[in-house]
Amino acid sequence: MPNWLLPENIADVLPSEARKIEELRRLLLDNFRRYGYELVMPPMLEYLESLLTGAGADTDLRTFKLVDQLSGRTMGVRSDMTTQVARIDAHLLNRVSVTRLCYAGSVMHTRPSGLHATREPLQIGAEIYGFAGLEADAEIQELALASLALAGIRTVRLDLCHVGIVRAIMAVDANARANEGAVFALLKSKDAPGLRDLTASFGAVARNAILALPDLYGDVSTIERARKVLPPLPGIVAALDDLQALSKLAGTAQITIDLADLRGYHYESGAMFAAYVPGLPNAVARGGRYDHVGEAFGRARPATGFSMDLRELARLLPAAERSSAIRAPWGTEVALRERIVALRQSGEVVIQNLPGHENDQEEFNCDRALVLDNGNWILENLG
Amino acid sequence: MPNWLLPENIADVLPSEARKIEELRRLLLDNFRRYGYELVMPPMLEYLESLLTGAGADTDLRTFKLVDQLSGRTMGVRSDMTTQVARIDAHLLNRVSVTRLCYAGSVMHTRPSGLHATREPLQIGAEIYGFAGLEADAEIQELALASLALAGIRTVRLDLCHVGIVRAIMAVDANARANEGAVFALLKSKDAPGLRDLTASFGAVARNAILALPDLYGDVSTIERARKVLPPLPGIVAALDDLQALSKLAGTAQITIDLADLRGYHYESGAMFAAYVPGLPNAVARGGRYDHVGEAFGRARPATGFSMDLRELARLLPAAERSSAIRAPWGTEVALRERIVALRQSGEVVIQNLPGHENDQEEFNCDRALVLDNGNWILENLG
Repeated sequence: MPNWLLPENIADVLPSEARKIEELRRLLLDNFRRYGYELVMPPMLEYLESLLTGAGADTDLRTFKLVDQLSGRTMGVRSDMTTQVARIDAHLLNRVSVTRLCYAGSVMHTRPSGLHATREPLQIGAEIYGFAGLEADAEIQELALASLALAGIRTVRLDLCHVGIVRAIMAVDANARANEGAVFALLKSKDAPGLRDLTASFGAVARNAILALPDLYGDVSTIERARKVLPPLPGIVAALDDLQALSKLAGTAQITIDLADLRGYHYESGAMFAAYVPGLPNAVARGGRYDHVGEAFGRARPATGFSMDLRELARLLPAAERSSAIRAPWGTEVALRERIVALRQSGEVVIQNLPGHENDQEEFNCDRALVLDNGNWILENLG
Repeated sequence: MPNWLLPENIADVLPSEARKIEELRRLLLDNFRRYGYELVMPPMLEYLESLLTGAGADTDLRTFKLVDQLSGRTMGVRSDMTTQVARIDAHLLNRVSVTRLCYAGSVMHTRPSGLHATREPLQIGAEIYGFAGLEADAEIQELALASLALAGIRTVRLDLCHVGIVRAIMAVDANARANEGAVFALLKSKDAPGLRDLTASFGAVARNAILALPDLYGDVSTIERARKVLPPLPGIVAALDDLQALSKLAGTAQITIDLADLRGYHYESGAMFAAYVPGLPNAVARGGRYDHVGEAFGRARPATGFSMDLRELARLLPAAERSSAIRAPWGTEVALRERIVALRQSGEVVIQNLPGHENDQEEFNCDRALVLDNGNWILENLG
């Protein structure tokens, strides 16, 4: 095998794509900042216990493990930055007030999440800590939608779900709680006969509610349908109110409600969303509330946030235009060097020809040249 | 041990430092672009053979190893991006013309290079491929110095050396070549008695030249001294001419010449530099010519470049000023939302208060508030 081949689902990013990613990265981080989010940079490697704290078995399987030569302990390469940022909020910043943090960096996965998925997503995201109310969820949802708009995406479908509904059902029935794993597996596969068999021994309230969930899927009217079909438990009413409020704040996004969606049940704790756009099968942005992650670090702080893969998002953008540039000869003459410095300071791309390579530049559109005319360096248009 | 402690020589970057790093990163990448350098993003992980191609034993020891679950092969976490970018030039871009590439990203080291050195430098650098002449080295040196100037650094010491000198000496003496390793070790420790013993069996030309090297250290006049002391072998004359030309192009940097400096002998092939600044014991930037790396990928292309650690460089910058920001109430009212969107679009930081947290923001300097006055949202200065 040639020594320059890369592992599967790992790729170099070449100049035209890299430029799109870099521009998008700046647009999004600048926008986060204008909302008051502060940038943090957690490390690529941490002790495994720290990386997996509050995370599920999925994260464990997705995480590359290494031995730390300094301590002999096992470290992991981060596969998700969310718990890292929660750790920073809990222990490094250690504020009592609301804290808004954002981040952007590579994460590595042992296996791709799909056939063509990269094993090195470039994760970018934002989080609010220290506020349990729906206003924070609304801000995160708004920021996710604003980020997609900045990426030039006009058509977005927003899938909303809420783990509070299943939690409320489980809370009223010991039998249901004892079979939690099986209920989740059947709900996930929307297996109605299996659910009927399993729930036969449950109380009527839990049983009817669980059996109703697979059908509570569709547009925003699903919320009203759910109010009629599901029992009026306080947790269910509150969750449906949350979903209704968030639907109203979604601007032009098309809303889909799926009350049987339990993704992230183990660490999410409230409303969750996934944003889909034409041309990409996987969600481009995912977010939601996960109040319990900080708890694992010994400091429970409510938290809500979202993240995206910049590489995937950048694929949706049109190719960047070739930059216009100026060709200049190589030389140490003061007047030439000063002119080049001034042009670059004004934002121009000036490429100094290396002797014998006067016609070389391929990626920049060299539409002007710096030429000596009667002792003055002037710009000349190239045909 | 608490689960939120990080491994030794690994650290989070908190908001004030992260902002400095991000701003510096943009300044430097934008400047690279104005010189005609195109951004590439090589992956964090590659097969080990690919990462270590053309690199020395140091790089091997510094590289974390992992098993690829998809292929069963060993992968490495990059500890240096230089060979990765050479691979991209050789095989992905595959141009015959001069190619200028730049990059910025985290690299990981198994062990810190010094007591307080980070194991996760944020490497940023630029490379020119396809041109063997000194003009390319001069451009790289200029770009390195321009990068330090952009980082606000006024006082720079530039250490120059040239592996061509020792290579030329070795080329004329088979005995010297047979003892290459021992000669290098003694030169490194500037062990004059040891060198006298070892070179006793060498020819007079090589012996005298080798014994002269440890003293050929000092300011730019060292070059003239070397011309008198060293034999006028073509390789030596060419190397001294290179050093003289590069010294003249170093602007206000203070020049130090060290002809016994053999760092990077195995992969460097011409002039090399290291830039030092007050306040940092280690070089902030290193660069030089390494024409043989591409060869190992089956496509020899001359190459010269430099790199820096952004984290280290950012430490030299003064703390970023707290941004001025505007406090706004939370609300869904259209007029309020439109006003907030407009302010953010004009570049302002607008922080929406979450109910009960009206006096919370600590990192931003909230010097204005958006308040309702006679039905209009107006900005009010805060005391």
